[in-house]
Amino acid sequence: MENKQIINLEDIQKAATRIGPYIHRTPVLTCRGLNNISGASLYFKCENFQKVGAFKFRGATNAVFSLSENELAHGVATHSSGNHAQALALAARNRGTKAYIVMPDNAPAVKIEAVKGYGGEIIFCEPTLKAREATLDEFVKKSGATIIHPYKDPGIIAGQATAALELIEEIDDLDIIIAPVGGGGLLSGTSLVATFLSPKTKVVGAEPEGADDACRSLKSGRIVPSVNPRTIADGLLTSLGSITFPIIKNYVSDILTVSEKNILLAMKLIWERAKIIVEPSGAVPFGVVLQHREKFAGTKVGIIISGGNVDLKTVRW
Amino acid sequence: MENKQIINLEDIQKAATRIGPYIHRTPVLTCRGLNNISGASLYFKCENFQKVGAFKFRGATNAVFSLSENELAHGVATHSSGNHAQALALAARNRGTKAYIVMPDNAPAVKIEAVKGYGGEIIFCEPTLKAREATLDEFVKKSGATIIHPYKDPGIIAGQATAALELIEEIDDLDIIIAPVGGGGLLSGTSLVATFLSPKTKVVGAEPEGADDACRSLKSGRIVPSVNPRTIADGLLTSLGSITFPIIKNYVSDILTVSEKNILLAMKLIWERAKIIVEPSGAVPFGVVLQHREKFAGTKVGIIISGGNVDLKTVRW
Repeated sequence: MENKQIINLEDIQKAATRIGPYIHRTPVLTCRGLNNISGASLYFKCENFQKVGAFKFRGATNAVFSLSENELAHGVATHSSGNHAQALALAARNRGTKAYIVMPDNAPAVKIEAVKGYGGEIIFCEPTLKAREATLDEFVKKSGATIIHPYKDPGIIAGQATAALELIEEIDDLDIIIAPVGGGGLLSGTSLVATFLSPKTKVVGAEPEGADDACRSLKSGRIVPSVNPRTIADGLLTSLGSITFPIIKNYVSDILTVSEKNILLAMKLIWERAKIIVEPSGAVPFGVVLQHREKFAGTKVGIIISGGNVDLKTVRW
Repeated sequence: MENKQIINLEDIQKAATRIGPYIHRTPVLTCRGLNNISGASLYFKCENFQKVGAFKFRGATNAVFSLSENELAHGVATHSSGNHAQALALAARNRGTKAYIVMPDNAPAVKIEAVKGYGGEIIFCEPTLKAREATLDEFVKKSGATIIHPYKDPGIIAGQATAALELIEEIDDLDIIIAPVGGGGLLSGTSLVATFLSPKTKVVGAEPEGADDACRSLKSGRIVPSVNPRTIADGLLTSLGSITFPIIKNYVSDILTVSEKNILLAMKLIWERAKIIVEPSGAVPFGVVLQHREKFAGTKVGIIISGGNVDLKTVRW
């Protein structure tokens, strides 16, 4: 199987052009304090500054703006309690169509409000994966809405890839790019861009020890689904999918895991030294650098900060 | 008295050239969420990303690099428990001289460590202004070190002015620039830059209600010192000085105050929506925009985020 046939460089470049008017071209920040701590030269691609606060808006925008008028006639739909929900809601509003989001009825109020704030319509269900999928299927059959899956979709992957495209355009000669891995949309897109445009750059996936299905899948050569994943990095609980796994197997050099303690330490250090808000999932790549220092010391490393959506109601001064 | 004689445009431009190799040219960020909340177009000059985490590094660098070899022979000294202490320590190290910082013996460990981390030497004293001044005087008589005051120094003011210089170079046609005011170094420098280069831009000072000496001084026409100021914005406790007050009187349009509640709300909104860490003092200008909405709605406003040094040990998830 030749993955370049599924998503090629032109697809990613077209995605960049398509989504350009709607997204932020996010800054790449450096921080001497974090370089000193890690012994590496770190370049942070700040998708926490992206609209809706996460890279997910790139993929959702590309997917929604790739649909025909017919496919959009009854809106788009997904199930998500995370950043993809907000991303799809805003992308749909920008395209002038409706987004229907299936969410578990125990989702945090702040996430429900965010989706509603972007004009999304929420369909509640029981808080199990089975209920989420069944509710979405039933809704789509009834309504005719088009499903936009958070990562089992080449248009989504091509959209997520544009973050690394911008990073490589801006920073030359990166030895390594690290991206977090949940369902694998960001990581697979990142690995394709590096393969096409900067083949000397290794791409490494970063994963919580408590949700290490991608690491185990890569080792065993087949998709090993998550079973009861537990991590503060709640954006990375999902398992690799049938489109992302083969790409990751072919183009990602390694997947490294990080403990909960180092995820929290990484998040705190980024807040304290780089003065930016990252969510736990967004701190996982820097956590990997802290935990596997010897693999990165002395190298030039691009880090994709995936998002910055933290519920500050849970933070106390 | 003609203030342009004390600090003119050339002084500020020379300061910019002098400090250029040592400082960050900090980014100007915008955030649609905060624009929507305020009804204004806000441009945040992010001195929280400056070295040592605050604009103070600009003034300290300019002052230290303006001294002759003779003046530097016995190092530089100041009393400060805040960002000026770290700024002076790093500026002195960059120039290859010593910095001696008089600090109260109850200063937070995190601030002591930061000064030491930049190579500064700390001289402890009792935690009163009188003890700080006496200890500094005594040390300077004994050692021959040169005092660098945090704001009673034209070189400091010219250095702080370079933040607004960069902002005006980057963003055209600002209606207003808001800077926080403590001793007045940043605000007076900002007002001079705007007067010289963008005379249509009004400059407004932002001050906590619990430390409103600048507001009262401007109203009464003479310096009214702070008496027991109380605010979470601990960078703004100091009173206006003899150099900064006349500049502020001549060139600042207004000083507006903000409640503690709105300072905290402003800080939280900036963390949450703009995804950047600002310290309470750095949130005071946006707090003023929230509290005096009618004065800013519909206008183009530059906001100087003065710093981002928050002790995250006091933050709990």
